[in-house]
Amino acid sequence: MTGAGEEMHALVERLYPLCRSITGDGVRATLDIVGEHLPLQVHEVPTGTPVLDWTVPQEWNIKDAYIADPTGKRVVDFAASSLHVLGYSVPVSATLSLDELRGHLHTLPDHPSWVPYRTSYYRPQWGFCLAQETLDALPDGDYEVRIDSTLADGHLTYAEHVVPGQVTDEVLISCHVCHPSLANDNLAGIAVATWLAGALAEGTPWYTYRFLFAPGTIGAITWLARNPERVGGALPAPAGPETGGRVAHGLVLACAGDPGRLTYKQSRRGDAEIDRVMRYVLAASDRPHRITEFTPYGYDERQFCSPGFDLGVGSLSRTPYAGYPEYHTSADNPDFVTPEALADTLAVCREACAVLDRNRRYRNLSPYGEPQLGRRGLYDSLGGRSDAQQAQMAMLWVLSLSDGGHSLLDVAERSGLPFDAVTAAADALHTAGLITA
Amino acid sequence: MTGAGEEMHALVERLYPLCRSITGDGVRATLDIVGEHLPLQVHEVPTGTPVLDWTVPQEWNIKDAYIADPTGKRVVDFAASSLHVLGYSVPVSATLSLDELRGHLHTLPDHPSWVPYRTSYYRPQWGFCLAQETLDALPDGDYEVRIDSTLADGHLTYAEHVVPGQVTDEVLISCHVCHPSLANDNLAGIAVATWLAGALAEGTPWYTYRFLFAPGTIGAITWLARNPERVGGALPAPAGPETGGRVAHGLVLACAGDPGRLTYKQSRRGDAEIDRVMRYVLAASDRPHRITEFTPYGYDERQFCSPGFDLGVGSLSRTPYAGYPEYHTSADNPDFVTPEALADTLAVCREACAVLDRNRRYRNLSPYGEPQLGRRGLYDSLGGRSDAQQAQMAMLWVLSLSDGGHSLLDVAERSGLPFDAVTAAADALHTAGLITA
Amino acid sequence: MTGAGEEMHALVERLYPLCRSITGDGVRATLDIVGEHLPLQVHEVPTGTPVLDWTVPQEWNIKDAYIADPTGKRVVDFAASSLHVLGYSVPVSATLSLDELRGHLHTLPDHPSWVPYRTSYYRPQWGFCLAQETLDALPDGDYEVRIDSTLADGHLTYAEHVVPGQVTDEVLISCHVCHPSLANDNLAGIAVATWLAGALAEGTPWYTYRFLFAPGTIGAITWLARNPERVGGALPAPAGPETGGRVAHGLVLACAGDPGRLTYKQSRRGDAEIDRVMRYVLAASDRPHRITEFTPYGYDERQFCSPGFDLGVGSLSRTPYAGYPEYHTSADNPDFVTPEALADTLAVCREACAVLDRNRRYRNLSPYGEPQLGRRGLYDSLGGRSDAQQAQMAMLWVLSLSDGGHSLLDVAERSGLPFDAVTAAADALHTAGLITA
Repeated sequence: MTGAGEEMHALVERLYPLCRSITGDGVRATLDIVGEHLPLQVHEVPTGTPVLDWTVPQEWNIKDAYIADPTGKRVVDFAASSLHVLGYSVPVSATLSLDELRGHLHTLPDHPSWVPYRTSYYRPQWGFCLAQETLDALPDGDYEVRIDSTLADGHLTYAEHVVPGQVTDEVLISCHVCHPSLANDNLAGIAVATWLAGALAEGTPWYTYRFLFAPGTIGAITWLARNPERVGGALPAPAGPETGGRVAHGLVLACAGDPGRLTYKQSRRGDAEIDRVMRYVLAASDRPHRITEFTPYGYDERQFCSPGFDLGVGSLSRTPYAGYPEYHTSADNPDFVTPEALADTLAVCREACAVLDRNRRYRNLSPYGEPQLGRRGLYDSLGGRSDAQQAQMAMLWVLSLSDGGHSLLDVAERSGLPFDAVTAAADALHTAGLITA
Repeated sequence: MTGAGEEMHALVERLYPLCRSITGDGVRATLDIVGEHLPLQVHEVPTGTPVLDWTVPQEWNIKDAYIADPTGKRVVDFAASSLHVLGYSVPVSATLSLDELRGHLHTLPDHPSWVPYRTSYYRPQWGFCLAQETLDALPDGDYEVRIDSTLADGHLTYAEHVVPGQVTDEVLISCHVCHPSLANDNLAGIAVATWLAGALAEGTPWYTYRFLFAPGTIGAITWLARNPERVGGALPAPAGPETGGRVAHGLVLACAGDPGRLTYKQSRRGDAEIDRVMRYVLAASDRPHRITEFTPYGYDERQFCSPGFDLGVGSLSRTPYAGYPEYHTSADNPDFVTPEALADTLAVCREACAVLDRNRRYRNLSPYGEPQLGRRGLYDSLGGRSDAQQAQMAMLWVLSLSDGGHSLLDVAERSGLPFDAVTAAADALHTAGLITA
Repeated sequence: MTGAGEEMHALVERLYPLCRSITGDGVRATLDIVGEHLPLQVHEVPTGTPVLDWTVPQEWNIKDAYIADPTGKRVVDFAASSLHVLGYSVPVSATLSLDELRGHLHTLPDHPSWVPYRTSYYRPQWGFCLAQETLDALPDGDYEVRIDSTLADGHLTYAEHVVPGQVTDEVLISCHVCHPSLANDNLAGIAVATWLAGALAEGTPWYTYRFLFAPGTIGAITWLARNPERVGGALPAPAGPETGGRVAHGLVLACAGDPGRLTYKQSRRGDAEIDRVMRYVLAASDRPHRITEFTPYGYDERQFCSPGFDLGVGSLSRTPYAGYPEYHTSADNPDFVTPEALADTLAVCREACAVLDRNRRYRNLSPYGEPQLGRRGLYDSLGGRSDAQQAQMAMLWVLSLSDGGHSLLDVAERSGLPFDAVTAAADALHTAGLITA
């Protein structure tokens, strides 16, 4: 797993310099690189397309941007970090005094050496982000500012990767791809999602797993608008071009690579199956972790859990957004993300998928009294012993609770037995014809 | 508010000497004085009228009563305190030895200087209440006893005051007016109800507020019998003379003026909206308070919460009945009630009415994904900031939970946001056409 | 009650030497002795009869069994204790070396002086159980082993005793009669069941009480198979020969006589009425006790609570199976069981039956406001007193909660009043025509 951790970290480092935004070539370049690991279906949705309550915006691209001081020296340079330009800045080419310039500058006075991350997607303006200490060192005088960006009709880009399962019902794993040079938020999520897809494809999972790499908010909204058949029949839109199963469960991956403890934020429902699975997996492991209630602020669980959809989608992070000082600053760089943390997040995701995939409901076909397990070779025939084996207890529990209403996770929780022992018992009983799915 | 406290206390002092009972001129005089503050609709219900399982009793009035000692000196005198006569005493005029007299005397040996309050509404008898130390000082000899009372066909008197609201559904505020010279029980409740009505009339509340000033038990039962259309269609009586909305919520005010902490006794349902509102208002305030479970003993919540009606009516007191030594004694006099406590009870009532009035359920008209708040000027258009404003969070929470099933109080409780922030958000969203009631 | 304790203990001592098993003459002899106390209906079910998923096995009987050492001395002798033979041993007559013999010997190395209890009902084999210290003292050499047993077509034997009630709905009291010389497990349960039946017959209980004395597992399964009309209409078997009411509640008695604290194991449902009654009775008493969750391991509650039946049957023990070192060993002898513990278990059973029998739901016939209790002589007519009598509170509570949905146990639990006060109030109100069952 450390191998996977190192590999995921290498992906984070490789993606780090790209200037991502909610549209544009930075997203495409990012998806190209992810596509080297996973085959991706890339979608391009034209500017102006109505998506739920929103409209796909113009596409933003940027070639160069800088502030040059009175001597002509570039004191703030987009080439050094994509964070230096306010996201979605309109183009500008002008000479301003330092005082005129200040209204367009964003700094973090409390962290004078860090560059903040700022955007203005829906109000046309331009601006630069820089370290407070850089700003403090600027002499008075005339400054040349130039942002060589374009805001024009184009497309919003997102991608999907599907790991086919034994059933068409889907588990949606989603991560946002719109943040520029920020490592934990969310190159870490992209990396974990990529490796999770690879791991799932090693077998044939029960559910079909759909991985969504999309810009935050508008990307999720666009995907929801185009996939009504997957997200609830109540959506008053015609069926989209895709067909497939409904989203039964889902997980948003964000801030997945810092060294902090794991945090699972529950779905709006709070008792969705994914909530129970994540609580169980985290509680059953020795990992320090935190379970938090749903709030309508955060990442794209906001969209998936909006009341019209109310999907069973939670969110897995390590330290959640705004919970660490480096959040949305240049200090959220690849050094802030560790291979060990990436590997640990991946491991929890794999464990959760394993439980989710195996968490089925059975019906006891011999529900009147206990079936004679000994006759079927399922039970030690030597009676009168005072020790009950875990495997036998698991069979008795599965038989007792397999009334169609209890899942194997219910059995594990009520019995206190490990989930694996319960699934092994269910397999044995199923093979013996004593329970049916 | 201290002004209101002083004014309410002055009303308590003015009403204190009157000899109230479940019928009679003392009740009428009390309602006359309350009527100087609020226009009252006074009802007179004839003796013998069947009311639910009961019958309106004969009317009791009293002019004079005393015990004169062997020297002719009045040692117990109704003129000094209305408590001295057993309520509903039949008339008597006799001379008895002290020993013969003792069977008709009520004292409090544990509080030898206090006079107890006793009644005998439904068993004809006569009696006097006096201080134990007065009794102890009486010499042997013949005593003249005289009670100049009448028990005759007449009426039961109660009054209503209505503050019209925007809807006809009603909030019933009830207080008992049958106790003679007892300040906390219940002149304090009468005073708070009177000032609450005045305060509500300063605006136009959402609900219609009905104030009921009635004798305990038989008064509430009479009102219930005469208002079947307000209290549940299951009542097997023809519709009464009044028309109007049903009682949606209610509060019984009793023992509302002592310096003890506030006590809210929940309705029989325990989860009625008034219960949740009172719990919320008391918890959100800094006031020490106590929430108690419903019991079928107490004041007129007993009648309103009887299983045939099962109304959402709770009871607000400070120290509840029988919870203080002065209860039902001459020590429950105007000194026992403070302007500060009266003002504090009034303030809590006003806060509760404000929450109740504003606690509505909305439906999100844009429930698929988040609506674009920025386009509507509802959301700061500058993204990427790590601080989320309370107002914005309140809007997101209202949108998230406005599925018809959650009230604004639900939103406040689940989000942890102040109720006022939630209502402001709901107002903004309603104005923007994003939610509907 | 100490008298009953001593008498129950005498029964335990008398039954102790008999060699019981799941079939055979030991069971018949046991039922003969129980039948001296209670008239029993004894059932004989032929070998080969299909019962649910099982088949009635061959009948096992044994006359003699021993191991003789090289000198011919019986070093292990069935005549000394029925535990010495592996239950259901096939017959054997052979001479073996000590090493050959060892594979057929069962000991308890941790308790070298105790003889274990072992059976092999469904795998044909033979064996002996002995003390480890006996085994250690055996010299090498040839040993004569002889088990003079028969395994042949015959019958499975169980018995019933019915205490008729006022209604045909039944309470099933079940105890297993298949364990040989073990006192707590389950001669104690047999003794308590026998005395409980006698105590119930002193009056006419509300429910019909059915006592079942049957071998564990196969006996309960046989009874269930033959009583489909009592245990749930879903059982896909034709109605059995008996007719009668359904099993409304039940209790399995096992390990009922050791000095440990009482343990009630809840039914699979967890909220069955028997669960609530047992919790209430144990909590209301001063007895130390423990309430445990259902598990599908234990005694015949396993069968009664299997998901097809899911009966409201719990299990009452003192120290539960496998919870004491003497369990399933020769140390579970009559000295391990005390008259005091037997009497205490019996007392709890009687209290539980009394509550169960009296725990009915009433409907208030005067639910609109309070009925006038004083007019009916049910309420002290002297008002204004600050003390409320328990009896009056109980009447008010019964009236308040008698809406068809609350039982008298609900009333007792919610009011905090003793169950007896609540039932007395219900009786008075029922007599006054204010409530109906």
